[in-house]
Amino acid sequence: MDQDIIKKIPHKTIERLSQYRRALLICLSQGKTHIFSHEVAEIQHITAVQVRRDLMLIGYSGNLRRGYNIKDLIALIGTIIDSQDGQRVAVFGMGNFGRAISAYFEGRRERLSIVAGFDVNPQKIGTSIAGVPVYHIDRACEIISKEKIKIGIITVPGNQAVETAKIMVDCGIKGILNYSPSPVKVPEDVFLEEYDMITSLEKVAFYVKEH
Amino acid sequence: MDQDIIKKIPHKTIERLSQYRRALLICLSQGKTHIFSHEVAEIQHITAVQVRRDLMLIGYSGNLRRGYNIKDLIALIGTIIDSQDGQRVAVFGMGNFGRAISAYFEGRRERLSIVAGFDVNPQKIGTSIAGVPVYHIDRACEIISKEKIKIGIITVPGNQAVETAKIMVDCGIKGILNYSPSPVKVPEDVFLEEYDMITSLEKVAFYVKEH
Repeated sequence: MDQDIIKKIPHKTIERLSQYRRALLICLSQGKTHIFSHEVAEIQHITAVQVRRDLMLIGYSGNLRRGYNIKDLIALIGTIIDSQDGQRVAVFGMGNFGRAISAYFEGRRERLSIVAGFDVNPQKIGTSIAGVPVYHIDRACEIISKEKIKIGIITVPGNQAVETAKIMVDCGIKGILNYSPSPVKVPEDVFLEEYDMITSLEKVAFYVKEH
Repeated sequence: MDQDIIKKIPHKTIERLSQYRRALLICLSQGKTHIFSHEVAEIQHITAVQVRRDLMLIGYSGNLRRGYNIKDLIALIGTIIDSQDGQRVAVFGMGNFGRAISAYFEGRRERLSIVAGFDVNPQKIGTSIAGVPVYHIDRACEIISKEKIKIGIITVPGNQAVETAKIMVDCGIKGILNYSPSPVKVPEDVFLEEYDMITSLEKVAFYVKEH
């Protein structure tokens, strides 16, 4: 697809395309070859109209009788979301959560891989966790440059998040996913996504309380 | 506040109120007593108008000169989000991620606590992880009923998520936070929130690729 068209795809559509691919990969692994928009919609808890609109936006239309070809659609979504050369990610904080994330991602996406972990605990430095080598945070800039890492995940404790984000930005990280309990600030040219587990759990708890 | 008014607060506002409280708790721990809407907005990467609108919705207006009283506001948000009697949560799957979540939540919210973990690994059953006792999944209904658990977090591998959700619903869980890589289905009276880490990372990666 034309890069200018790709750039204009809304954030929310990109998220949904990623979710569609996740669902399609599961269906493919179960031996399914085709799928209808209403089936994708049901898995994602959204409407079939939304699915069709998103896929039309990326120029894909299924066969009315058989539905979408799962393999083709996975490949097409890949050309939009993935980087041709692959993208390399580092995890900052190899505690429980950093380890869990490293294990979770291991081998799950071809074009997106965690290639380094940073920590300050001398017992972890020099080891490998879920296939991810662990370095001292003091070596962040050196490793990030050497490994061509542009994306970082923050899993350090809340009181270290702001300082960690600063190191990441200073070392050339361009996209940050912050899982620490503390919000961080980044310059305008760095993309930041923050997720707080407590907020999600409180939302669920609120609806349970009320109903 | 009137429960009927609380019920009408939109999902997104509830999420933001939870995020405001998170930010306010951090400010309070730093010794701050008052805060302006534009400061809250900056921490949350949203507009001050949005903050003021949300707080007006819950009937709170600050002092023009000094801003919001942080302690008062935390207390008020608590009366809306929290359950008076506290709510009890179980984690399904005490692997890396289940352990990380248990450690992450430990003592962080007074009215929301993780009181049980479920797994099938005999080496984990009977142990305690981050203060959370681990039981065999076969005892789910018994423990959920005894411990009055209404909320469950799914952290099992993707291929066990659907079955796990079914057990949870059958045992009386009314709110589910699904962190497994596989989407699940629940009846209409159960509140479901799904979060996929790969989707979030792919979103960050997409913007890094394009810019």
